[in-house]
Amino acid sequence: MKIGEYSTFSYDKLVTATGSTPKIPNLDGIHLTGVFNLTQLDEANAIRNYIQNGMRKALVVGAGLIGLETAEAFANQGLDVTVVEALNWVLPEMLDFEAASYLAEHLREKGVTLLCGQSVGGFLGDADGKVCKALVGGKELDTDIVLLSIGNTPNSSLARDTGIEIGALGGIKVNSRMETSAADIYAGGDCVENVNIITGKGVLAPLGSTANKHGRVIGTNITGGSDTFPGVLQTACVKVFDYNVGRTGLTERRAINEGYDVITSLVPAPDHANYYPGSEEIMVKLVAEKASGRLLGAQIVGPGEAVKRADVMATALSFGATIDDLAGLDLSYAPPYNSAFDPLHYAANVIRNKRDGLAVAITPAELQDKLERDEDFILLDVRAPEEWHKNHIEARQTVQIPLPELRQKLDTLPKDAEIVILCRTSVRAYLAHRILKGAGFSDTKFLDASINGWPYPLYGTRSRKHIANQSDV
Amino acid sequence: MKIGEYSTFSYDKLVTATGSTPKIPNLDGIHLTGVFNLTQLDEANAIRNYIQNGMRKALVVGAGLIGLETAEAFANQGLDVTVVEALNWVLPEMLDFEAASYLAEHLREKGVTLLCGQSVGGFLGDADGKVCKALVGGKELDTDIVLLSIGNTPNSSLARDTGIEIGALGGIKVNSRMETSAADIYAGGDCVENVNIITGKGVLAPLGSTANKHGRVIGTNITGGSDTFPGVLQTACVKVFDYNVGRTGLTERRAINEGYDVITSLVPAPDHANYYPGSEEIMVKLVAEKASGRLLGAQIVGPGEAVKRADVMATALSFGATIDDLAGLDLSYAPPYNSAFDPLHYAANVIRNKRDGLAVAITPAELQDKLERDEDFILLDVRAPEEWHKNHIEARQTVQIPLPELRQKLDTLPKDAEIVILCRTSVRAYLAHRILKGAGFSDTKFLDASINGWPYPLYGTRSRKHIANQSDV
Repeated sequence: MKIGEYSTFSYDKLVTATGSTPKIPNLDGIHLTGVFNLTQLDEANAIRNYIQNGMRKALVVGAGLIGLETAEAFANQGLDVTVVEALNWVLPEMLDFEAASYLAEHLREKGVTLLCGQSVGGFLGDADGKVCKALVGGKELDTDIVLLSIGNTPNSSLARDTGIEIGALGGIKVNSRMETSAADIYAGGDCVENVNIITGKGVLAPLGSTANKHGRVIGTNITGGSDTFPGVLQTACVKVFDYNVGRTGLTERRAINEGYDVITSLVPAPDHANYYPGSEEIMVKLVAEKASGRLLGAQIVGPGEAVKRADVMATALSFGATIDDLAGLDLSYAPPYNSAFDPLHYAANVIRNKRDGLAVAITPAELQDKLERDEDFILLDVRAPEEWHKNHIEARQTVQIPLPELRQKLDTLPKDAEIVILCRTSVRAYLAHRILKGAGFSDTKFLDASINGWPYPLYGTRSRKHIANQSDV
Repeated sequence: MKIGEYSTFSYDKLVTATGSTPKIPNLDGIHLTGVFNLTQLDEANAIRNYIQNGMRKALVVGAGLIGLETAEAFANQGLDVTVVEALNWVLPEMLDFEAASYLAEHLREKGVTLLCGQSVGGFLGDADGKVCKALVGGKELDTDIVLLSIGNTPNSSLARDTGIEIGALGGIKVNSRMETSAADIYAGGDCVENVNIITGKGVLAPLGSTANKHGRVIGTNITGGSDTFPGVLQTACVKVFDYNVGRTGLTERRAINEGYDVITSLVPAPDHANYYPGSEEIMVKLVAEKASGRLLGAQIVGPGEAVKRADVMATALSFGATIDDLAGLDLSYAPPYNSAFDPLHYAANVIRNKRDGLAVAITPAELQDKLERDEDFILLDVRAPEEWHKNHIEARQTVQIPLPELRQKLDTLPKDAEIVILCRTSVRAYLAHRILKGAGFSDTKFLDASINGWPYPLYGTRSRKHIANQSDV
């Protein structure tokens, strides 16, 4: 039988694994030469051949997994790369704003131009029908090649036409045995809807790791065995230049949209003992349910080992772990691999401290909003003078008192003012917060996450008007 | 107050954190110059100074964590290193024989001489009182320096003299709040006995990761809060030259000693997609309870990323995960970090296949015993001819049929013979096992783990008489 020929076969059990298709936006110029998708090997080869014809500028539409991996590949080929993302930050489905801002800064360091919160309006071609310009936010951008990476649609029309039930998101509906609504017909891979383990709701999760597990479950069930697929946590990881990104479960944004009352932590930490060579920083964001302490999700971003922590969190989330469970996990420790406390332990303990009233924190985004509204409060920087000189937040609210001098200078601070304390990794800020609280200060809080050591975490994909001495960081 | 002075203090809460002391064997010559322990910084400095005086040969007594880390450090300083271990394999408390044999082979590749199953009888000194010989297994070995690393004893005598309850293993007995048997007295760190989460029994776990968690629990409880320590899995990791070792829970040996009926898998796999640069192999050993499928322990050894998997397993063990739970975990997948199936998924699925009667396996140690007893069976090597020429097991039982030719050559094999099938990673052997089973062969099994790709896994710390062409591997 050749492609294009049709025959009729009988079956005992039938498996549909029709995959997914890249979404193509309905835009002028979308069919110009040089506008590519990337989900098939031949597309990759076509792109590689195309850019070898003296291409200089690449435009990536969509800052998801494929978009960012391709942005890196374009940059490594010497192209000048711009990424346009309709939402306000990169990897918007995977990460919250703060975690994404570290990654965004790294992309900028690598020369990638990010245009977040902007949409592509269409493409213009040259006389040969090759794309040469893109309309972005009302402006024309020169480009030699365009990659479309705005997500995939499950290929469920064959099943739909057969009368098989389709989920609300367009994927084939299956039960935990991967059976469709039709007797003896199974489905798996990108074409089905999965169940998110935490919310119990249908989600699309077009990933190879999920499809492989579907395959084994289906293979077992159609050959007389019995197996079930437990659902997904939408765990994902990606390498973007020198940064590692891992995530699992719900983002804070999604948890709030799902109706959870959340409590979070945002903790920078070295990925292993900082006296052992090769230690690099990671930023851990944990999201938990406030009342129960049940963990809902995690995001880990940085040049250090992030993916190990995502896998630990995926395992913990699978069993309904709480922040207390996480704090007690007997994880591996030796200096080449970790500190005596894993960064996840720190992040769990920060949430426990918040829950137990020991710590009051403010997020980078909240601080930024306060600064942009020019509120009256004191922004207390407790780092050493040499750190201050490297970079600091330039604002009328800023006061500089290094931690070792704080106890002597308590009377320079008003006891009833709102005081937001910051340092490099939150540790000194937390200590200062406890000192001020012990001395009777009524409204102090510390900044979750760091002000430096990471480039501009406060001002990731937003404005940077308050950061002084940027070039020194 | 100076060292040596005594004063009396009153307390509301008292914490004893007296640590542990290295075990010193009662041997002739144990106090000679050049015989060292290594648990304090000044000992490390003294060792470094001592070996700079033209030392050439080092003897390490005990192949535990400190012993192997120091063996590497000695070798990196150019010394000729011998490690003596009373048990039959390295890291005997942490690993079973098979997993340890991979590490042993790596140590040998790095020039370390291993004397396993042997004891040190004493030391001889030169005219200056410096150690110059050690008696090992009745022979005299020249050595310039000796490191003793045979474990630690909890410092519990102060507590014992006070009437505080001491556990069966000599550590201070504490409850989950880290309270001793005496009111308002807490204890933590190396001086206490911990509870193993799986067995519920007391264990010594003198590790920094455990001590740090003790510290936080005690700190919370003595300052008016309430926290508990959940116990330990005896998770540990160590870097030995280019190998990574991670382990958690019970070894097979210990599980059997505890009365568990166990089922295991021993699976070699690349640590990430093997087409992505930098992929290295790891060997995963899982131990589970046969009837329930509950996981009991894991050992991961190899040049690849082993410690991530140990941490995932520690998390899974904390929640009583089964092999079915493990097979369904939504772990991170992207080619720089993993394959679509994590090696832990493979290892879980191998046990599931064994449980479900799809797979009958034999361990390397069992095969070795069969060969050494010269039993009648067929050892079917289904690798490609070029792999066979590189190395193979030289034995009268060996038959070579590459997997692609197997279906055509079925009639060359007797249907009622015991047939043990092997390949490089067990995958082809498992396929051959299924082909033979489908063709009516009555007694076939495949070899867990690999014959090459890893150096001499079958003959790790035991004999190698059956391996042909060793130098080619």
